[in-house]
Amino acid sequence: MKHILMSHGAGGWEMGELIRQVFVATYGPPDFQPDDCAFLKWEGSRLAFTIDSYVVDPLFFPGGDIGRLAVAGTVNDLLTAGARPLALSASFIIEEGFGVADLKRIAQSMAATAAEAGVALVTGDTKVVPRGAADRLFITTSGIGRVQGSGLSGAQVKPGDQLILTGPVGSHGLTVLLAREKLLEGEDLKSDVAPLADMILPLWDHQVPVHAMRDPTRGGLAAALNEIARQSQVGLELWEEEIPVPPGVAAACDALGLEVLNLANEGIMLIFVAPEGAFRALELVKSSPYGREARIIGRARDSFPGRVYLRTRLGTSRLLPFPSGELVPRIC
Amino acid sequence: MKHILMSHGAGGWEMGELIRQVFVATYGPPDFQPDDCAFLKWEGSRLAFTIDSYVVDPLFFPGGDIGRLAVAGTVNDLLTAGARPLALSASFIIEEGFGVADLKRIAQSMAATAAEAGVALVTGDTKVVPRGAADRLFITTSGIGRVQGSGLSGAQVKPGDQLILTGPVGSHGLTVLLAREKLLEGEDLKSDVAPLADMILPLWDHQVPVHAMRDPTRGGLAAALNEIARQSQVGLELWEEEIPVPPGVAAACDALGLEVLNLANEGIMLIFVAPEGAFRALELVKSSPYGREARIIGRARDSFPGRVYLRTRLGTSRLLPFPSGELVPRIC
Repeated sequence: MKHILMSHGAGGWEMGELIRQVFVATYGPPDFQPDDCAFLKWEGSRLAFTIDSYVVDPLFFPGGDIGRLAVAGTVNDLLTAGARPLALSASFIIEEGFGVADLKRIAQSMAATAAEAGVALVTGDTKVVPRGAADRLFITTSGIGRVQGSGLSGAQVKPGDQLILTGPVGSHGLTVLLAREKLLEGEDLKSDVAPLADMILPLWDHQVPVHAMRDPTRGGLAAALNEIARQSQVGLELWEEEIPVPPGVAAACDALGLEVLNLANEGIMLIFVAPEGAFRALELVKSSPYGREARIIGRARDSFPGRVYLRTRLGTSRLLPFPSGELVPRIC
Repeated sequence: MKHILMSHGAGGWEMGELIRQVFVATYGPPDFQPDDCAFLKWEGSRLAFTIDSYVVDPLFFPGGDIGRLAVAGTVNDLLTAGARPLALSASFIIEEGFGVADLKRIAQSMAATAAEAGVALVTGDTKVVPRGAADRLFITTSGIGRVQGSGLSGAQVKPGDQLILTGPVGSHGLTVLLAREKLLEGEDLKSDVAPLADMILPLWDHQVPVHAMRDPTRGGLAAALNEIARQSQVGLELWEEEIPVPPGVAAACDALGLEVLNLANEGIMLIFVAPEGAFRALELVKSSPYGREARIIGRARDSFPGRVYLRTRLGTSRLLPFPSGELVPRIC
């Protein structure tokens, strides 16, 4: 590993290696976990803290824009930690010559998304770089949340846990890819990007026994589930026929040779819940507009620890590998 | 204002206008203050929250690098709020092809700077963009601190307050500018970039009556002091002969036609303190290696509210205006 490749940012195996070899090797937390948040003790309670940069191209796409993405992505990361999102900060790196009207539109989109999620945008920063030094606009958002209960990690899944997927897969990654390549004309596709606080917070209010959550962004379901299988050392069994794929997404994946389970999503959540809480969790999630198509798509087992198996529509079983390679660049 | 100009990121008047017209107009805090942190209530205590992106060019310069800058800058912003820095998050936007050895060196510099400041780097993110979509590496850091006492804002300066400057001015901005233009050869200049926790925290431990602090980064002393004069509606009187300028900085400013009071600094602090605490504050600051050259450089008055006046070496007085224009780009 001498130079950074596109695959180092794609959410797959190579990104994990970069993080381990450069950052974990330097900062050295002995118990490093690839979760989306850190926890800090604070006056007897716990605080979740997260950060993400957004470099999506194009900046505006059907269903959303970089501003909605930057707020929703950070809100959803806090939710995966079992935290109630409280406050966000946002930093803008802007290329000289960028249109102020576009910047205002993006700022308004961020404000609307934050209001929807019930979080405050409380502080920020702007930097301008000369023409050619950045591609139009990058946004970094950091978030703080109050941990409900003891907090969640991908390491807490137990054999027997049911796996809920809250909505159909693949639309965000595919929409952004096709919008960038100007192949969207006539397609009925849009990104699912959404802040999921209204769907997830009731799980805490009703004390549903949730063991882990993950929003399957870069690397899709395949990356998120492989990470959790390794962290928790359980085997994950997925039922392919239960995973909702919009017809337009399935058709485009077939035509382009893309694996839908590797595509990024920005408005769905994977929820691992103890069996006795599964029905209640599903009921609560389905009562949110973003969770209407939620269903149980698999379960955790004690066989094949660290692996993800897909039971196909044909009745066969196959390993779902950790994605690798470039996947789809700049989708978030 | 139709397109973003370099001046919109330079820390001067135009940046203030951009922030007011785009961000404040959108998020609308009625009591917006141009401070570097936001405050959040948390379990009876208060938390300070800040974010900054770093786009410095070159990435390595005499005295520091983008990693040291990204940690020190965010630590110092927390200190200006009257907070004890606790934890940082860091997000990396990396251009495809960037050297992994350089990335490791920068990660190690961040770890060393964080250790020096007594803060933990707890979470992060990496994005990779294709060649040409970013200029090598941008880092965004966000920080959380515990507010000591009631927290500081630039709005709390009172007539009579003494103004302490903790070290000489101009070296960071000038060093980065000359390093970028490859004009540094033979110059004995280096950036002052440093995390100032060891110098500032004893002020709280000893209950010194500090009313405001500001680290004079983009836009230099001129921007920082004009902001505070406006926020507090006091007049600020500066004594030019008391402001330490390293001879190499003064000579280069003369040769290049730069105003040293507009140049960015990354390792000094402006401290406003009630008159009865000024001596104690100076003593404490001077006992830190970064504060040996600290001195009182001026005072707050009730005349000329909102303005900064410079008493020159010649005995005359002149207005020190809010800087405007491009100033020096990409110095942080």
